Amino acid sequence: MTLNILFSARPTFWKQYEAPLPRALAEAGIDAQVFQPGDVAAEDVDYIVFAPNGPVEDFAPFTRAKAALSLWAGVEQIVGNDTLAMPLARMVDTSLTEGMVEWVTGQVLRHHLGIDRHIVNPEHEWKFVIPPLARDRVVTVLGTGALGTACAEALVALNFRVRGWSRSEKQIAGVESFSGDAGLMAALEGAEIVVLLLPDTPATENVMGARAFAAMAEGGCVINPGRGPLIDDAALVAALDSGQLAHATLDVFREEPLPEGHPFWAHPKVTVTAHTASETRPWSASQSVAENIRRAEAGEPLIGLVDRGAGY
Amino acid sequence: MTLNILFSARPTFWKQYEAPLPRALAEAGIDAQVFQPGDVAAEDVDYIVFAPNGPVEDFAPFTRAKAALSLWAGVEQIVGNDTLAMPLARMVDTSLTEGMVEWVTGQVLRHHLGIDRHIVNPEHEWKFVIPPLARDRVVTVLGTGALGTACAEALVALNFRVRGWSRSEKQIAGVESFSGDAGLMAALEGAEIVVLLLPDTPATENVMGARAFAAMAEGGCVINPGRGPLIDDAALVAALDSGQLAHATLDVFREEPLPEGHPFWAHPKVTVTAHTASETRPWSASQSVAENIRRAEAGEPLIGLVDRGAGY
Repeated sequence: MTLNILFSARPTFWKQYEAPLPRALAEAGIDAQVFQPGDVAAEDVDYIVFAPNGPVEDFAPFTRAKAALSLWAGVEQIVGNDTLAMPLARMVDTSLTEGMVEWVTGQVLRHHLGIDRHIVNPEHEWKFVIPPLARDRVVTVLGTGALGTACAEALVALNFRVRGWSRSEKQIAGVESFSGDAGLMAALEGAEIVVLLLPDTPATENVMGARAFAAMAEGGCVINPGRGPLIDDAALVAALDSGQLAHATLDVFREEPLPEGHPFWAHPKVTVTAHTASETRPWSASQSVAENIRRAEAGEPLIGLVDRGAGY
Repeated sequence: MTLNILFSARPTFWKQYEAPLPRALAEAGIDAQVFQPGDVAAEDVDYIVFAPNGPVEDFAPFTRAKAALSLWAGVEQIVGNDTLAMPLARMVDTSLTEGMVEWVTGQVLRHHLGIDRHIVNPEHEWKFVIPPLARDRVVTVLGTGALGTACAEALVALNFRVRGWSRSEKQIAGVESFSGDAGLMAALEGAEIVVLLLPDTPATENVMGARAFAAMAEGGCVINPGRGPLIDDAALVAALDSGQLAHATLDVFREEPLPEGHPFWAHPKVTVTAHTASETRPWSASQSVAENIRRAEAGEPLIGLVDRGAGY
């Protein structure tokens, strides 16, 4: 019997999944047809693949559906939805970590090597500037969860002098570890490149403020692929303007897309990227969805099954 | 007794070595004073630290000197100098490989991630473009000598699909290997990023010509930290203009510094870097010089001792 899959997400998502999702289902040996909202009756749907900001908000009419499979890793927007009685799985996608490691490593090397000076060079100046070696460059990673640890390990493999900070003590091979409030300034002291991969909590808000920037090496860089509120925006602009910091590359913001008129856009020492550091890739996410449908049909446990009581 | 070290190189070199060389000598426990040409009588010099394009060309007056220590790895400009009778050592510096790996990895990630589109963004456009993962990106390294192998290994560690080509067959873990004339086009077929690390020989001149560019994936990038003559300049410009290639990042040229007026300077799809991909670092080079002086004083063999008959 052909399974009916409802794909409920913004149209831009559909364009990305239109080809890979049917292909992944076929490769997993699943006889299925994928519909967009309105193209299938709610009571005929077997599985709901959805983004929390997509059109389906009321799950009650989907009486036959066996599971709701989120395209997002975070389910905080959906976990309290009382209309959702069926099993809910969050996205578990190794490509998130891979993508983050690639992005962080690329941005750290960009600042380490001073690549920008050659990209923007209207005077055609032959800029013979030799950077120090990575082994003489201190990089501090704030937040050594799964993503931060993977990034720190990749930077160690490239010989950087890597420090890691987390709330509770954590050892990573080749990384100088710091923890707790007392360790934070020590981790930042003299750091030339700081990578922010902390979660967004009341305790981490504005963790990068005037004091943190002052602790860093003069001419240092901040790279934020974590969360917007980790940075005190005004303090960052002040640190850039004073010359204490040379550059900030920011992928996340308090408001996204970053509003036109925000000082970050026009600041010559800020690079704005569009929350692209770590993103679910349609192809690997489609494979994850197909695997979970295969599991559900075979009566096997879902990967990423959400505990509604715990909230994740 | 205090040793007299003559430092013979261009003034820009002296600025780089002024601090690190005395420091490295002191750290190696060597009692020495470093002089510039004119500040010490030739017959009082114990060791000559030199660059082949520096002021000292006639070594005959240095009757007491025990060794000439080159700051360059290549000694082809000095090996035929008949006035040089003392032992000659070329620079052996692991920082050359480290620097090249960092530069190549950084440039590959820059192109892989599409970092440039965010660096130059005068319209303040929120560019949500997700690159493929490294595991879906084919990178070909032409030339798998010491530098090329180290670069290929670093790219494998970042999950890139790496191909290597060399004249004679060579196996590198995780790298798909190609060799010989027959393997060249196969190595380039569909490659999205090509890194050039071949030596400059009659056989490698213009190896990247129209046929090679056509074999690459449409929208591919070329990165040349190797030698200028590896690329057919006119064919490269044509491939960029036609859209077959998206970008070229070039660190080496047939004439350096790249002359003003050369089409590479103003081409919107070319990044010119100033032969900085791999360079002897003053600090590690100073350590190598100090170690060789320590060895000479202790009667131990010099590292990098040149065989004048063989020419290297």
